[in-house]
Amino acid sequence: MKLLEERILKDGQVYPGSILKVDSFLNHQIDVKLLNAIGEEIKRLYADCGVNKILTIESSGIGIACITAQFFDCPVLFAKKTKTKNIANAVYKTSVKSFTHGTVYDVIVSKDFLNKNDKVLIIDDFLAEGNALIGLIDLCRQAGAEVVGCAIAIEKGFQPGSSRIRELGVRVDSLAVIDSMEDGEIKFR
Amino acid sequence: MKLLEERILKDGQVYPGSILKVDSFLNHQIDVKLLNAIGEEIKRLYADCGVNKILTIESSGIGIACITAQFFDCPVLFAKKTKTKNIANAVYKTSVKSFTHGTVYDVIVSKDFLNKNDKVLIIDDFLAEGNALIGLIDLCRQAGAEVVGCAIAIEKGFQPGSSRIRELGVRVDSLAVIDSMEDGEIKFR
Repeated sequence: MKLLEERILKDGQVYPGSILKVDSFLNHQIDVKLLNAIGEEIKRLYADCGVNKILTIESSGIGIACITAQFFDCPVLFAKKTKTKNIANAVYKTSVKSFTHGTVYDVIVSKDFLNKNDKVLIIDDFLAEGNALIGLIDLCRQAGAEVVGCAIAIEKGFQPGSSRIRELGVRVDSLAVIDSMEDGEIKFR
Repeated sequence: MKLLEERILKDGQVYPGSILKVDSFLNHQIDVKLLNAIGEEIKRLYADCGVNKILTIESSGIGIACITAQFFDCPVLFAKKTKTKNIANAVYKTSVKSFTHGTVYDVIVSKDFLNKNDKVLIIDDFLAEGNALIGLIDLCRQAGAEVVGCAIAIEKGFQPGSSRIRELGVRVDSLAVIDSMEDGEIKFR
């Protein structure tokens, strides 16, 4: 997606350790117009898939998921990273290892909101190792829901996430795939 | 806001300890159409205030903030609850006590995205004790930004949050104010 690639080149910042900061427009400050363009493109890709629910994970996927859901006219469900008092015990749970923080955390969704009638599009801002998305796929499969695909804003194509997800038999579409970030220079696939 | 009150009566669940669960449409599963109606109402309330930034806090405020930002044609900034590796040191920081979890956590925003030229509308899903919003107001004031007001979906009117915020000289608008939830019966103001 040209608009997103141009924005990454203009405002993204590359740090040592293959860290790409896009927090001026995607995951701290959010450019809602850009999110609308992303949502429109995701709708084009998944127009005929019968999507009736969008699943993401807190926090930085929520904005993209909500804006995109407007194009699909369906609800958003966001998986929570910790168990809160306000959620009853009837949850699907999986464990996810954070690439960014080096920790393992539980991810839950209420059983009330995910079931075998759902055709789920999973959305997130980033795909690198793929651990969060694999966790979300696991939650869907526990619920008997169908995962129609994973739509991602930015993929680090030099990390194994998309391959790991496709090995699970799940479609992956990343709107911008970065092949390398050597010496601070971003190259797209 | 009648539509929101009706939805709370239809789908909200009251639990002991004045806990109101609205996770079927507001803060776990999200009804994006309802969020659009909420955004439109917030725009009506703050149409003439020169809002150029919407500030919220992760996670459950992000959806409302992003949908509402479409009506204001401005970016969203969401404050983060923990310091991540991906954020540089140049942050404004404040401490917030969680009413739900009984813990104290740090909240940060990058100094890059909040400054004295900003006219900030703060948005959140819930207002009870007001601690999170007071923290967000503190972040804005550290940055020299003007807070034009706080727009909230649901206020527990029997808790002191809105009074505490008004004592700081900040306008508060809650789209649904609950006066009592005794014996599971929700009464609006």
